[in-house]
Amino acid sequence: MTKWVYAFGGGVAEGDAAMAELLGGKGANLAEMASLGLPVPPGFTLTTQVCAFFFGHGQTFPEDLRPAVETALGKIEDSIGAGFGDAKNPLLVSVRSGGRASMPGMMDTVLNLGLNEETLAGLAAAGGDQRFAWDSYRRFIQMYGGVVLGLDHDRFEELLAFAKEDAGYGFDTDMTAEDWRELVGEYKDLVAAELGSPFPDDPLEQLWGALGAVFKSWMNPRAITYRAIHAIPEDWGTAVNVQAMVFGNMGDDCATGVAFTRDPATGENTLYGEFLVNAQGEDVVAGIRTPQPLSSAARQANGGAKPALEECLPEVYAELGGVCETLERHYRDMQDIEFTVQKGRLWMLQTRTGKRTAAAAIRIAVEMVGEGLIDEKIAVSRVAPQSLDQLLHPTIAPDAERKVLVTGLPASPGAASGGIVFSADDAEARAARGENVILVRVETSPDDIHGMHAARGIVTARGGMTSHAAVVARGMGRACVAGAGALDIDAAAGTMSVAGVTLNTGDVITIDGATGEVMAGALAMVSPELTAEFSTLMGWADKFRRLGVRANAETPADVKAAADFGAEGIGLARTEHMFFDEARIKAVREMIMAETEEARRAALTRIQPMQEADFEEIFRLMAGLPVTIRLLDPPLHEFLPSTDDEFAKLAAETGTTPEAVKRRAAALHETNPMLGHRGCRLGITYPEIYEMQARAIFNAAAKVNKERPGTACPEVMIPLIATRAEFDRLKPMIDRAAADAMAAAGISFDYLVGTMIELPRAALLAGDIAESAAFFSFGTNDLTQTTFGLSRDDSARFLETYRRQGIFEADPFVSIDVAGVGELVRMAVDRGRAARPGIKLGICGEHGGDPASIEFFEAVGLDYVSCSPYRVPVARLAAAQAALGAVAKPD
Amino acid sequence: MTKWVYAFGGGVAEGDAAMAELLGGKGANLAEMASLGLPVPPGFTLTTQVCAFFFGHGQTFPEDLRPAVETALGKIEDSIGAGFGDAKNPLLVSVRSGGRASMPGMMDTVLNLGLNEETLAGLAAAGGDQRFAWDSYRRFIQMYGGVVLGLDHDRFEELLAFAKEDAGYGFDTDMTAEDWRELVGEYKDLVAAELGSPFPDDPLEQLWGALGAVFKSWMNPRAITYRAIHAIPEDWGTAVNVQAMVFGNMGDDCATGVAFTRDPATGENTLYGEFLVNAQGEDVVAGIRTPQPLSSAARQANGGAKPALEECLPEVYAELGGVCETLERHYRDMQDIEFTVQKGRLWMLQTRTGKRTAAAAIRIAVEMVGEGLIDEKIAVSRVAPQSLDQLLHPTIAPDAERKVLVTGLPASPGAASGGIVFSADDAEARAARGENVILVRVETSPDDIHGMHAARGIVTARGGMTSHAAVVARGMGRACVAGAGALDIDAAAGTMSVAGVTLNTGDVITIDGATGEVMAGALAMVSPELTAEFSTLMGWADKFRRLGVRANAETPADVKAAADFGAEGIGLARTEHMFFDEARIKAVREMIMAETEEARRAALTRIQPMQEADFEEIFRLMAGLPVTIRLLDPPLHEFLPSTDDEFAKLAAETGTTPEAVKRRAAALHETNPMLGHRGCRLGITYPEIYEMQARAIFNAAAKVNKERPGTACPEVMIPLIATRAEFDRLKPMIDRAAADAMAAAGISFDYLVGTMIELPRAALLAGDIAESAAFFSFGTNDLTQTTFGLSRDDSARFLETYRRQGIFEADPFVSIDVAGVGELVRMAVDRGRAARPGIKLGICGEHGGDPASIEFFEAVGLDYVSCSPYRVPVARLAAAQAALGAVAKPD
Repeated sequence: MTKWVYAFGGGVAEGDAAMAELLGGKGANLAEMASLGLPVPPGFTLTTQVCAFFFGHGQTFPEDLRPAVETALGKIEDSIGAGFGDAKNPLLVSVRSGGRASMPGMMDTVLNLGLNEETLAGLAAAGGDQRFAWDSYRRFIQMYGGVVLGLDHDRFEELLAFAKEDAGYGFDTDMTAEDWRELVGEYKDLVAAELGSPFPDDPLEQLWGALGAVFKSWMNPRAITYRAIHAIPEDWGTAVNVQAMVFGNMGDDCATGVAFTRDPATGENTLYGEFLVNAQGEDVVAGIRTPQPLSSAARQANGGAKPALEECLPEVYAELGGVCETLERHYRDMQDIEFTVQKGRLWMLQTRTGKRTAAAAIRIAVEMVGEGLIDEKIAVSRVAPQSLDQLLHPTIAPDAERKVLVTGLPASPGAASGGIVFSADDAEARAARGENVILVRVETSPDDIHGMHAARGIVTARGGMTSHAAVVARGMGRACVAGAGALDIDAAAGTMSVAGVTLNTGDVITIDGATGEVMAGALAMVSPELTAEFSTLMGWADKFRRLGVRANAETPADVKAAADFGAEGIGLARTEHMFFDEARIKAVREMIMAETEEARRAALTRIQPMQEADFEEIFRLMAGLPVTIRLLDPPLHEFLPSTDDEFAKLAAETGTTPEAVKRRAAALHETNPMLGHRGCRLGITYPEIYEMQARAIFNAAAKVNKERPGTACPEVMIPLIATRAEFDRLKPMIDRAAADAMAAAGISFDYLVGTMIELPRAALLAGDIAESAAFFSFGTNDLTQTTFGLSRDDSARFLETYRRQGIFEADPFVSIDVAGVGELVRMAVDRGRAARPGIKLGICGEHGGDPASIEFFEAVGLDYVSCSPYRVPVARLAAAQAALGAVAKPD
Repeated sequence: MTKWVYAFGGGVAEGDAAMAELLGGKGANLAEMASLGLPVPPGFTLTTQVCAFFFGHGQTFPEDLRPAVETALGKIEDSIGAGFGDAKNPLLVSVRSGGRASMPGMMDTVLNLGLNEETLAGLAAAGGDQRFAWDSYRRFIQMYGGVVLGLDHDRFEELLAFAKEDAGYGFDTDMTAEDWRELVGEYKDLVAAELGSPFPDDPLEQLWGALGAVFKSWMNPRAITYRAIHAIPEDWGTAVNVQAMVFGNMGDDCATGVAFTRDPATGENTLYGEFLVNAQGEDVVAGIRTPQPLSSAARQANGGAKPALEECLPEVYAELGGVCETLERHYRDMQDIEFTVQKGRLWMLQTRTGKRTAAAAIRIAVEMVGEGLIDEKIAVSRVAPQSLDQLLHPTIAPDAERKVLVTGLPASPGAASGGIVFSADDAEARAARGENVILVRVETSPDDIHGMHAARGIVTARGGMTSHAAVVARGMGRACVAGAGALDIDAAAGTMSVAGVTLNTGDVITIDGATGEVMAGALAMVSPELTAEFSTLMGWADKFRRLGVRANAETPADVKAAADFGAEGIGLARTEHMFFDEARIKAVREMIMAETEEARRAALTRIQPMQEADFEEIFRLMAGLPVTIRLLDPPLHEFLPSTDDEFAKLAAETGTTPEAVKRRAAALHETNPMLGHRGCRLGITYPEIYEMQARAIFNAAAKVNKERPGTACPEVMIPLIATRAEFDRLKPMIDRAAADAMAAAGISFDYLVGTMIELPRAALLAGDIAESAAFFSFGTNDLTQTTFGLSRDDSARFLETYRRQGIFEADPFVSIDVAGVGELVRMAVDRGRAARPGIKLGICGEHGGDPASIEFFEAVGLDYVSCSPYRVPVARLAAAQAALGAVAKPD
């Protein structure tokens, strides 16, 4: 026989904290607290199986539920020494939902259940106050009328408003016992008129009505939407908790409050929280009265006028401290609790693991290890990796008011304030004068790099998460909001407009690259701060992780940042980013404009020494760590300008006509550049480009290794391989460049030649390709684009709909699609390893910095992940959690 | 012990025709002919294993090869009664390569081997002619000097030229025996001077030199290139045939010729061929002398002056006829033979299956069944499906001279001549006046449809095999050359220029849509003719095939054509093609311009009746056959114009401003439209569009089925599904439209709702998707694009390089990539069937009409293929061959 009901209270409980699936989070923790002997109002939980039965049987309850409920009710009566419906000493109960996952405010609650005109008298006697009793009764009718009887909540509010108006009252507190009593009469008349039957007086009838209603609220539209958004399965159902009422509003020896066992903002080990004297829990949340701090110290720090709990109810404060210590020792984590003090007696209403800032999470985890509460592994698993972003970039102060002008894509994390500028040159000029600027562009191009570097942040109206602006900003660690399509930018006029607001050059805005928000004015910022606890935790993480962590970087600044953040190598150096430098783009464009191989080679000859110098610097900075260098990937047209002015300028520079430049640009134009003439396809049609790059890599490596053997460990990576024949065609050229450089330097060193796996075909044919390639690096950005047939740049306009409708649970460009893209990765891993045991396997797509994806990469057994320098700590922590099998999700 | 050498001749042979892998095609057939007792000059074959040994061992021969060769040489001597190196009665031999696959002219040959100044005397005595003997000797030295000794062929030709000049001769025939003798001396001096050693006199030394040289020629650059182009594996190697020389140039009782056992152009069962009296085989090929026909009848038909073989050597002619009959009865196929008559005696030098036109292939196959030579299955396997294209479209006469102006992509087969026009309106106007026109455009758009229909053919300067022009032309059966990039089109001036030639409006050109060639002037055409034999053969094909064959069609003309060509349903009706009609595009554009769902619905309401009428007509035409209708697929911007003039026009039509139109077009612009907001993504973001289409489909079906039950069998197909959730979101809407239409009509009929599988993710998740989808249709065009990450429109500029370098053996957009795309198809088939046994599986990409791909689709067990109407017969035949396990490749 199914056990439908689990009782708790009086130092014992039938359930425990491990039974959240059956009892819901709240019910399980109430049972656990009761077992711990903590003062929990006695009660019982109807399981989620009742919920399943209820919806599986036309919203009816199992036959054997009624006796079980009545038995459990009897236990409450026994425990508390009161009777349900007893006129003298009435038991009142609350009926609350409580699912496996928290769904705050989404479902219904009924309080004060069990009241009628008879039991009301008993309540008044117990509380010593008629006014309190009638107020409680009218609250019950109002709540019950709305939740259970389905009446419009506003009808009750209207009656209350009329009553106050008639009496000339300003506040509810002006209402007397008699006033409440009269209102109760009006409420009951309303119910009778609307329903044609009187408001139920029988406490049992009330209870069954409330139970049905609370279960039904699992399927209310609010709850359904919330579940869709938070990916909570409908079949989880909810549990329902019935619990003896305790009142924090029976007088000045009563109170209600919330507390954290440690400071959730800083992590400091101190009781943190607030309370209200003579109040119900909802009053604390409602914010009408200003709550008081718990400790004297906190009151003194705040300069608060009203006494702390420690001061006005010292015994309760002491007891609460003991309870908190018990809870922390028991749960081994910081707890977020709700309590009520009724007539000087402390009652615990809820405990759960407390949310906290990243800084607090780290401090708490590290200190709890010191206190012997948890071990290092658990500490590592306690911090959500994503939350480290808060620590690595400036962020907007939590209490700053955000007047959002427009929201785009959160393209590069961090926050920044500055005067807006509309050109890269202007950005550079103003930055040189010491001004903070935000560069605002319709979209950025290689010509804007110096301006992006000079700016504190970048906003674009067009482009997606992999647009030029986004990629470059992430690499540089600049905050960036991309694709804010509602922005109307008039660069010539020096204005940007949105929703009727127009800003001019120099007007200050603040951008939040983590949310995509753009706000007017300068908002208060919180600076990043890497504490000793941070280092300790990261050290533990490094100890536990199996996956290596590298960085995607190519500029000296980024490579240095990567090393500082603990990268164990470069997983992706994009040689084309080096091409964008102003000093080089000219030679690059000459190379592209060249009509013959000879002219192309002449331009490449000028580029080669610059590339050599780049590689030399990277090798020196990474000093012995592997550096994976990807040969040229983007289609050539990306390096050409697009406006008539720029055509003319380039024509003048390259000694040709604007028409010729335009013609060349038109000839290079592609319908689908993502699927076009790029990657190794360039290397095969213009082998001289890859040859130059290979020579630059190995000349640099030879030079550096000659000075100090073992410094340069180059791994040359060929992009966009679809078939082994492509790789086999290009590898000999690279080997030749290596052999020539070593021979010229008279030394020898190791290097690898490998490939990106970024096309479905490459994943399918990985066994074949691994016969030739020494390593694979999964390019999951492009692999996601091709597997889904989904252009990241173009998908913004429907991805939001997809997310909202629950078609995609997560953005597949953020967290790897395990079922689809993941299967291809897994196939490639298996086939690659079968063909070449020990093949080196990494991933260098944006997913390399995403904790959920890292969990998958750990599962398939990759050797390393590579991500942008600022994500390296995130990846280190996520890799450790993945290895420990405990990836912490962000709150 | 490996057997390296296989002898043949004198009515016996150690090999046979089945041993082509070991003996090469020529050697195997020589052995077979010898076994049949046909007059084959005796000889022996060095196997392809010798070749493998040779290249595997530093170009040396196996030790036991020498005795085997000498034994085989002895057999020739015995058979022919002559001695190798015998001064009186010398045996001369030819040394020829002969691989598994024919590689005409790519490798080296040495003739007359065995000659020296001694044996020459014996040859002169046997042939009765000193001049012949010295000529033979100098030919041998020249050939041997070039092939074996590596001397420059031109050096010998120079000496010959000087000799003729000195003597004042015009032709080689003027040279006397003494002249040749003197030249032989000069040749030998040249060899001695160049090599520092005399020309070898020892026949055995000559033989081993020749054997090594001919094997080596397997790896000469010509041969390597040829193999790369024709996908012949290098490790096949070549065999080498050593065979007693016979001479057709020993006098007027000698001759040499080639023959086909049936007419290779028409298939008529008559001995067909030509010969030369007193000539060597190379003289027939060289084309210096005009060959004579074999039969009197052929001579009379040609009005030739010189006698036929039947007339000048009647006994030989009779014997040749007998040989041909023997060969045909033996090989059961039309043979292409080479023969030589030496002193009145017929010798067979080669036989192989003869190449033939499509018409001939069909006639021969059908007639051979009548003659009891082959059965119907073999007849069906004898015709290369691709070759049917010749019969279904007009083609350029084989003997027409092609002055090619420019070559583009062979976008739609058939040939057409006409005056050039540069606008669709002009095309329509001139066609209405009865002129034949070719529409020449930079690229076509939906606005050009009426002009494309009016034109005989279409040429575009831009766009690939799936460009608008190509797709529409194939659908209409119009010849089309697309992407002829070298064309400079000035539509305003009414000119097109290429390579210095400028043509004006009205100038006549001819295009060949099967080769991509554009030629000046009107070339002679051959009209398509579907013979009784064609019908017979297709009837047999239908009997043997398992795969169903449907057509991709949506216009009434195309649907009718599809039915006429034997389509068993429509596999792909592209609803967007219906949108391009001039009467509709306006409403479509209004729908796209609509800013609100309401406005969009209003426009859709106007489109719906038109779509209903379309579907009604298709259902009626297909009368009971299934019709798969794909809901809107292309991104909306494809329907918008792109020039300022058109923006203005559209603004006027839709009552808005040109700026608004431009803004909407810009807002819809996509970086990678192939991966953009299209397919079911449109259906999910604008459900009203798919809803309209579903209602149109089912209203039409209900109407038609009410009149005549069973007429309409709609299969609604949702494009671009990547995840089951998309399908599940859209299917209920379609079911609702079906239910509503049936309820309104008071009838009920069957229909299916299924999906395209055209994204790698859909293939991977096919098991999941099949839970919801009743059928899959593989969209192999897009699946190839996404699996390879390769835009068909943009790949032209590097695909040619890929093909040339052997990176792609075949264009993956023409023949399905079995290893990559094919694996996804196979996975989807397996997973789909596992989840839904009996799921209907088809393919509607362009590969549906490609025989090699059809072979694969048969192997994975699809239910049907669907292709453009004009490919339906090709697909029917290919499907039959695939079922029979014998797909005929084109010559």
